Amino acid sequence: MQSAEHNRQWRVAAYPEPGELISSRHFEWATNPIETPRDEEFLVRTVCLATGPAQRGYLQAEPSPFLGQVPVGEVMRGRGVGQIIESHHPDYRRGDIFVGSLGWQDYSVQKPRGAEFVFSTKKVAEPMRPLSAELGLLGQAGATAYFGLHEAGDLRTNDRVLISAAAGGVGSVAGQIARLRGAKQVVGIAGSAGKCQWLVDELGFSAAINYRDDDVDRRLGELFPEGIDLFFDNVGGELLDTALNHLALGARVALCGFIATDYAAGPQAGPINYRNLVARRARMQGFVVFDYWERYGEAEQQLRRWYRDGQLKNCEDVAEGLEHMPAALASLFTGANRGIKLCQVAPDPEGLPRLEAATA
Amino acid sequence: MQSAEHNRQWRVAAYPEPGELISSRHFEWATNPIETPRDEEFLVRTVCLATGPAQRGYLQAEPSPFLGQVPVGEVMRGRGVGQIIESHHPDYRRGDIFVGSLGWQDYSVQKPRGAEFVFSTKKVAEPMRPLSAELGLLGQAGATAYFGLHEAGDLRTNDRVLISAAAGGVGSVAGQIARLRGAKQVVGIAGSAGKCQWLVDELGFSAAINYRDDDVDRRLGELFPEGIDLFFDNVGGELLDTALNHLALGARVALCGFIATDYAAGPQAGPINYRNLVARRARMQGFVVFDYWERYGEAEQQLRRWYRDGQLKNCEDVAEGLEHMPAALASLFTGANRGIKLCQVAPDPEGLPRLEAATA
Repeated sequence: MQSAEHNRQWRVAAYPEPGELISSRHFEWATNPIETPRDEEFLVRTVCLATGPAQRGYLQAEPSPFLGQVPVGEVMRGRGVGQIIESHHPDYRRGDIFVGSLGWQDYSVQKPRGAEFVFSTKKVAEPMRPLSAELGLLGQAGATAYFGLHEAGDLRTNDRVLISAAAGGVGSVAGQIARLRGAKQVVGIAGSAGKCQWLVDELGFSAAINYRDDDVDRRLGELFPEGIDLFFDNVGGELLDTALNHLALGARVALCGFIATDYAAGPQAGPINYRNLVARRARMQGFVVFDYWERYGEAEQQLRRWYRDGQLKNCEDVAEGLEHMPAALASLFTGANRGIKLCQVAPDPEGLPRLEAATA
Repeated sequence: MQSAEHNRQWRVAAYPEPGELISSRHFEWATNPIETPRDEEFLVRTVCLATGPAQRGYLQAEPSPFLGQVPVGEVMRGRGVGQIIESHHPDYRRGDIFVGSLGWQDYSVQKPRGAEFVFSTKKVAEPMRPLSAELGLLGQAGATAYFGLHEAGDLRTNDRVLISAAAGGVGSVAGQIARLRGAKQVVGIAGSAGKCQWLVDELGFSAAINYRDDDVDRRLGELFPEGIDLFFDNVGGELLDTALNHLALGARVALCGFIATDYAAGPQAGPINYRNLVARRARMQGFVVFDYWERYGEAEQQLRRWYRDGQLKNCEDVAEGLEHMPAALASLFTGANRGIKLCQVAPDPEGLPRLEAATA
């Protein structure tokens, strides 16, 4: 947990094969001197790092045109929150809290970047403990759930909502938002009985389906006799295909990602039931949360308000120590995480007020 | 071409197997007495019948939940335009022109039906020759192209537009509308060199792709180096999958139907490239033209104006005589038609003014 005087780093060592699980053997642990910021730059000490399925996409020998490849030998790319410990930029002061693409390392030299940069940066105006919330509930996971539901999913009061990977970071927030927005029903799909129980008991889902044990098609038919109005899909593949059989008239499918198939080996199948989109007058809408960067503040304010009012839970699953970052990323693909998966690299700075729910 | 004093009918004789082409052997020719209308009813003499891929869907042994099955032995269902020759309804008079579900027959007893009936009916206020236009350009084909482009496709000025089955009834109108609305580029996909030439020379398409001979993927790359903004898809299947590889950011795919696969035998494949919807922030939106029934007048007015101004061509492909109706329907699936496929059952009534283009 102690950050070093040197800069500990995870550098990319090798790209996993298609279908191969990401693991620590794809990274190399390195210790290097701490860099020195120049004019307009500042040095950030990493406090917490985010994980996301897209990170697996940076490590493809044949990179996607939409995800920049991280070359072998370079520090692994990743979003994080940290504290500025030395600055040569007039607007960023020592002690400020900063969110940006810090990389999998203890220290990084940064400069501000705007919305044109996909991993946009910001100074946190009123930082609170735990800083991890800046990356998760009030950060990318929260914003993804918020804009995915409202924009791509066109969430409406009384919607009957289905959420896949519902016990994951984005899904666990999305389900809670749907409930708070007056959805008639919020059903989650998850990968274990324990997660399913957690969704219902702790997060207020109406019901949950265990895709490993349940007959998903049959359960969807039982739970949605009048059809699904909004499907927030983080998974793709077979689950999506099955859900397309249960759409209500005018349904919306918000496509967030395809963790089921994105990095799988061999030929993949497309969803044959896409043909139901016509009969159900339905749509599938893909979205990428970065497009809403300039509106993140809107999501953050709303999420913070719900959290403070005790209506929204911040469900984090935090690995302790930079050395566990490869395993933290891998957990997204094995389903080992529950809630927003993060990695604490250094303790939160002292003296920050606690971001607290009124009823917590 | 002469309609009889009896009522000639095509009745359903057998359902085609999946993958079997529809043909006259699935229908039985019958001659029956003309029925008599009762109170609130009227008798219509059929003038022209429409064809549509959905008609093939009425003839499934295991019917789709969205298309009513026509039982074996009953008159084949189909939309048509005709003239009222006897009426017991105060709002419908002898001589009036009527559009509705007349069936594949010379005479039918009708009553008015509103938007709750999927094959809604209307009295034509200002009928003109050819009456076939009421079924095609100013009817369902025109309305499908109009609402599919504007609503499902969210057509915008300067869009780069792709249209499949572009030489078909809906596609040939859709391409012309896109051009008239200021699309930067309108490319059609069709099944022969002759159709491709016709699209460019006669209908003003920017370019056309012959899916039987051309490398569609390569041609799309050449014609849309910056991607497709709007794909109006009548075909589905492999063509859709290929087009999904060429979407521009924020693209819209309007799903009109799946003639490529709807009645094919054996397992079908889904479009694996649906995953591009996320990276391209794109959507696939299914639609059914009946949903816009109450707004048909809007489409009709605009289409009529364009037609009269000589900006829009009414491309009809008319079979002559009720006896050719099975072949007319079959032509949709073999690609034998060019433009809106219709079947003239009786001559247009005399004395109607001619619907004429100013420059024709």
